[in-house]
Amino acid sequence: MINNGYGIVDGHKDSLGCDMQALIRRLYPICRSITGEGVRQTISILKEYLSDIHVHEVPSGTPCFDWVVPKEWNIRDAYVVDPNGNKIVDFKKLNLHVVGYSIPVDKTVTLDELQEHLYSLPDQPAAVPYVTSYYKERWGFCISDDQRRILKPGMYHVYIDSDLKEGSLTYGEAILPGESTKEVFLSTYVCHPSMANNELSGPAVTAFLGRWLKSLSRRRYTYRIIFIPETIGSILYLSRNIEVMKRNVVAGFNVTCVGDDRAYSYLPSREGNSLADKVAKHVLRHHAPNYISYSFLVRGSDERQYCSPGVDLPVCSIMRSMYGSYPEYHTSLDDLNLVTPAGLYGAYEALQKCLWSIENNKFLKTAILCEPKLDKRGLYPSVGVIKMPEQSLVDMMNLIAYADGSRSLLDISDIINIPMWEAVNIAERLLNKGVLKEEDPGV
Amino acid sequence: MINNGYGIVDGHKDSLGCDMQALIRRLYPICRSITGEGVRQTISILKEYLSDIHVHEVPSGTPCFDWVVPKEWNIRDAYVVDPNGNKIVDFKKLNLHVVGYSIPVDKTVTLDELQEHLYSLPDQPAAVPYVTSYYKERWGFCISDDQRRILKPGMYHVYIDSDLKEGSLTYGEAILPGESTKEVFLSTYVCHPSMANNELSGPAVTAFLGRWLKSLSRRRYTYRIIFIPETIGSILYLSRNIEVMKRNVVAGFNVTCVGDDRAYSYLPSREGNSLADKVAKHVLRHHAPNYISYSFLVRGSDERQYCSPGVDLPVCSIMRSMYGSYPEYHTSLDDLNLVTPAGLYGAYEALQKCLWSIENNKFLKTAILCEPKLDKRGLYPSVGVIKMPEQSLVDMMNLIAYADGSRSLLDISDIINIPMWEAVNIAERLLNKGVLKEEDPGV
Amino acid sequence: MINNGYGIVDGHKDSLGCDMQALIRRLYPICRSITGEGVRQTISILKEYLSDIHVHEVPSGTPCFDWVVPKEWNIRDAYVVDPNGNKIVDFKKLNLHVVGYSIPVDKTVTLDELQEHLYSLPDQPAAVPYVTSYYKERWGFCISDDQRRILKPGMYHVYIDSDLKEGSLTYGEAILPGESTKEVFLSTYVCHPSMANNELSGPAVTAFLGRWLKSLSRRRYTYRIIFIPETIGSILYLSRNIEVMKRNVVAGFNVTCVGDDRAYSYLPSREGNSLADKVAKHVLRHHAPNYISYSFLVRGSDERQYCSPGVDLPVCSIMRSMYGSYPEYHTSLDDLNLVTPAGLYGAYEALQKCLWSIENNKFLKTAILCEPKLDKRGLYPSVGVIKMPEQSLVDMMNLIAYADGSRSLLDISDIINIPMWEAVNIAERLLNKGVLKEEDPGV
Repeated sequence: MINNGYGIVDGHKDSLGCDMQALIRRLYPICRSITGEGVRQTISILKEYLSDIHVHEVPSGTPCFDWVVPKEWNIRDAYVVDPNGNKIVDFKKLNLHVVGYSIPVDKTVTLDELQEHLYSLPDQPAAVPYVTSYYKERWGFCISDDQRRILKPGMYHVYIDSDLKEGSLTYGEAILPGESTKEVFLSTYVCHPSMANNELSGPAVTAFLGRWLKSLSRRRYTYRIIFIPETIGSILYLSRNIEVMKRNVVAGFNVTCVGDDRAYSYLPSREGNSLADKVAKHVLRHHAPNYISYSFLVRGSDERQYCSPGVDLPVCSIMRSMYGSYPEYHTSLDDLNLVTPAGLYGAYEALQKCLWSIENNKFLKTAILCEPKLDKRGLYPSVGVIKMPEQSLVDMMNLIAYADGSRSLLDISDIINIPMWEAVNIAERLLNKGVLKEEDPGV
Repeated sequence: MINNGYGIVDGHKDSLGCDMQALIRRLYPICRSITGEGVRQTISILKEYLSDIHVHEVPSGTPCFDWVVPKEWNIRDAYVVDPNGNKIVDFKKLNLHVVGYSIPVDKTVTLDELQEHLYSLPDQPAAVPYVTSYYKERWGFCISDDQRRILKPGMYHVYIDSDLKEGSLTYGEAILPGESTKEVFLSTYVCHPSMANNELSGPAVTAFLGRWLKSLSRRRYTYRIIFIPETIGSILYLSRNIEVMKRNVVAGFNVTCVGDDRAYSYLPSREGNSLADKVAKHVLRHHAPNYISYSFLVRGSDERQYCSPGVDLPVCSIMRSMYGSYPEYHTSLDDLNLVTPAGLYGAYEALQKCLWSIENNKFLKTAILCEPKLDKRGLYPSVGVIKMPEQSLVDMMNLIAYADGSRSLLDISDIINIPMWEAVNIAERLLNKGVLKEEDPGV
Repeated sequence: MINNGYGIVDGHKDSLGCDMQALIRRLYPICRSITGEGVRQTISILKEYLSDIHVHEVPSGTPCFDWVVPKEWNIRDAYVVDPNGNKIVDFKKLNLHVVGYSIPVDKTVTLDELQEHLYSLPDQPAAVPYVTSYYKERWGFCISDDQRRILKPGMYHVYIDSDLKEGSLTYGEAILPGESTKEVFLSTYVCHPSMANNELSGPAVTAFLGRWLKSLSRRRYTYRIIFIPETIGSILYLSRNIEVMKRNVVAGFNVTCVGDDRAYSYLPSREGNSLADKVAKHVLRHHAPNYISYSFLVRGSDERQYCSPGVDLPVCSIMRSMYGSYPEYHTSLDDLNLVTPAGLYGAYEALQKCLWSIENNKFLKTAILCEPKLDKRGLYPSVGVIKMPEQSLVDMMNLIAYADGSRSLLDISDIINIPMWEAVNIAERLLNKGVLKEEDPGV
């Protein structure tokens, strides 16, 4: 690992941000859902960036805890034709127009009947909402409220060329082995149609984190990285992997809403005190001190599964603008304009610092009773300091003062109020000079 | 138990408040002290409301820890006649005029001599103070400072027709058995003459709580309810019952000053962290969020005994305006105008919610790993929520998320910030649907 | 021990402050360093005040943890003569003019060459700084920046008549035995030349505290009091005494910067929760409520050694204006005008209250279940209190209420918010009356 002052070198900020945005542009048009070809195409493209992704197919009907893998849904076309013969709603122009998991339909209906199958947002009249009905068979269209209000009475032709039948649920999994069987876990989801911050920022940032992790000459931890449909995917994945994950995962992050450049957000694990929480709060305090700290009570993504009672995995989230908190959320307005290279890179870097901090977290102990004689090791000036020593010397002395073997470097960084990437630099110099020694690696 | 949204149905608010006020009006004229006929009459009337009250008589001279049951005091008449032959102070008009436990006297004294036996309040010149001398024999009169300042020199006839002799101390005790031998404890006192907030609100609210508890079709806990003279009564009662109470009492409340409508107050147990404290703070946070939280350092009633070292019972107080904190306290101004139906009912309801919350407190655990599939149980809409789910669904999901078997429903209610009466409703639906199961009942 | 209301009698405030100031005046002119005759003279004068001081000499070259006792340094004269033959810098007028541990020099140099050996403070142009070079051999002069800026080109005669050779390091140690082998530890330093707040206030206050401790008719704890050179002295002392100190020291104070009258300061031990910390915060809360509480992160004296990992002694500091925090620090401006009788006495008294509080700290338990009957012991009025009891009675009741055997008197004082010196008075009355009994003395 190359250490450039804060410890991590990994390409150029602008170029990485643009590369992630380019990946999102490729994935954007695909019509994803919790099953189907859209998921397969998405994972296939992600595999170009992270070749370790292994594709799993799980048959419809497979039980997973309280749930069952649903039928597979695929859609080819859908539209609404108005009484004048104009195609006023067209799936091929915007896949959000069809309620996810809509069953096939091909008939002519009155406006009143049509209304029962329409979804729109009166408060956001220009936006097309995102609606699904995975577990109850129905059909429907999502349109803007502006459009809905001008529909005229008459007969409408509604057409959905979809099928919903026995098939399989698809997910991707990459395991990057490390020196330890202990794991760091990354989870992101690939089940939303054309929306950018929620969701495509998640798979893009995760794939690039995976690529960076793979490039490391040495990994202390094993990395488990999954690309799944939200909710059913994480439940299914846990039903197959809970034992090994409960045994091995030391920290995990749910990667979602990591693309815009308006805020940083943190959502804790259920108890809020895991290594993942500790490192997330540490990194954000230094990386983006004005970050928003949400309560677990307002959670809404796969930490619902990872942090449920009996599962109890140490998983939290670092986000940019959190789902539900920004106006474009779950509408056609969450489009490619919302995610920016700077937004993506900022989240990527925050998560990268978390992973890097976990990799470099050690339990340190002074090798020497009382203050070590630092000048004889070239670590302190030989003339008595006039007045007070400079801050970098104070930081070094403080790090030594708390290196009592019971505290990790992350703990010490928090106490002495310096970022982990500075603490690692200081600690490495002190380890090299024999002032500190490493205790139990804490893995 | 009928569950009406917050779980408790128990007659009409206005009518119950008026009923309690009517009871206070009956008890008000009686001249109570720590012993004597006044206590017996008072308990006899309370028994009309709660027939389970059993009357105990303990002979004068009975030792109880560091104390001894005193002689019994009774009084028939008392007055002061001025030099002009006018009866200027008359026990029959206001029993506060006589210092409690005054020995008999019948003589003529100078004004100077009389002054040594008078008690008044210069800062509240219109009020007659409440004064006692239980453990040193003396006689005295309490008058308003307005009256005292216009007394003219001359000879005064002082007359007290009382007796102080071997007899007994009287207290009332009701035990309402429940499914468990574990107990909830209510204590109130019946030793003050004509004063309303401190003290008659206490026995009235306690008797009505007892009546409500008795009406329940099922009681999980046994209820121990006592009507005692303050201080000597609680010490005596503990000396006879400390072993069983230390073994069984899970929560207790000292019921005093529960009649006016100006404030809600909370006084903790010594350590402040018992089940009684937890439930009192929970209930008040939702019932009366602006309640005043006092320190144990300013306590002044029978928690002095219940929370003393070695006794260590989990007893706290929910009050309206706390003793010592309101100007009318311990004077003739603490009269029937001070206690109102709304004041009494508010305190009654807060204590009722505490008892009901303790009855309904359970340790819950999810029966299912990961999120339960709520729609198949009719607990969640089948169409994907547009934007964010409504608060009642969020509360339900949050309750499930913290039901890890280590937390009581009360703990969970505090974490997810909903009142216990909503949490119980949600929990019952989830228990019925098999989503949750009950752990150790925690009794 | 005479108890005068707050428990401590020890001469008159003004006279003690003046006596300490007089001692400082005697010590001020001596040129101290970490070794040499200056330290010996200083300890010899301190011994006049505290005859128990035993002088230790440790040879140069003696290893101590990561350090080695340096050569001994002595100096007789030093000056700089300018091109006009004027002696512009004279050690005999101000010993701060010579860099501590300067090697001998006697030559003529250009102004440019001289500049390389000069130290001054551009931000405090009138002040002569204090500079040392203990561990790298060099020579140098400290002058005011005002003087430095008017130096003219030409040849300067620099002369230092010092020697740096094998010798010994000197320190003083007084052990005042008590009933217990458990110890209270006081450490102060004697290695700075003519500076008053930092450092002479420290040895003066410490010597007077020792004298007071010696005057006590009874000492529960043994007192270990040391007068050492800073850093090397504490490291050396620990290398010889760490085992016994780790076993026995229950609380310790580093006594430094205790002479001016501008502030009170507290610097915690590393963990901040030792008995020394608890008592220091308790005393300052009552003695000087506006005291400044520093973080351990800005420490700079011998707690660097005492609180280092593996040493872990319970040592904190009570100071007046802390080193580094006041403008005169480590310059010629830290002179006799800075320390005042009131400043010295205030610090002396705060530390005295700490030691006295530790001596008088006991674990107390009520001897009686429920409230003791205080009136029969003359501790409470026999007439029922009108309205609320006075504060002194409340304090007494509160002390009893928390005397559960698990809390020390210091803990109880903090809970009931009275100073330890009032709590001891109350506790003694209650012990005498049999209301309380002493648990395990807690030594």
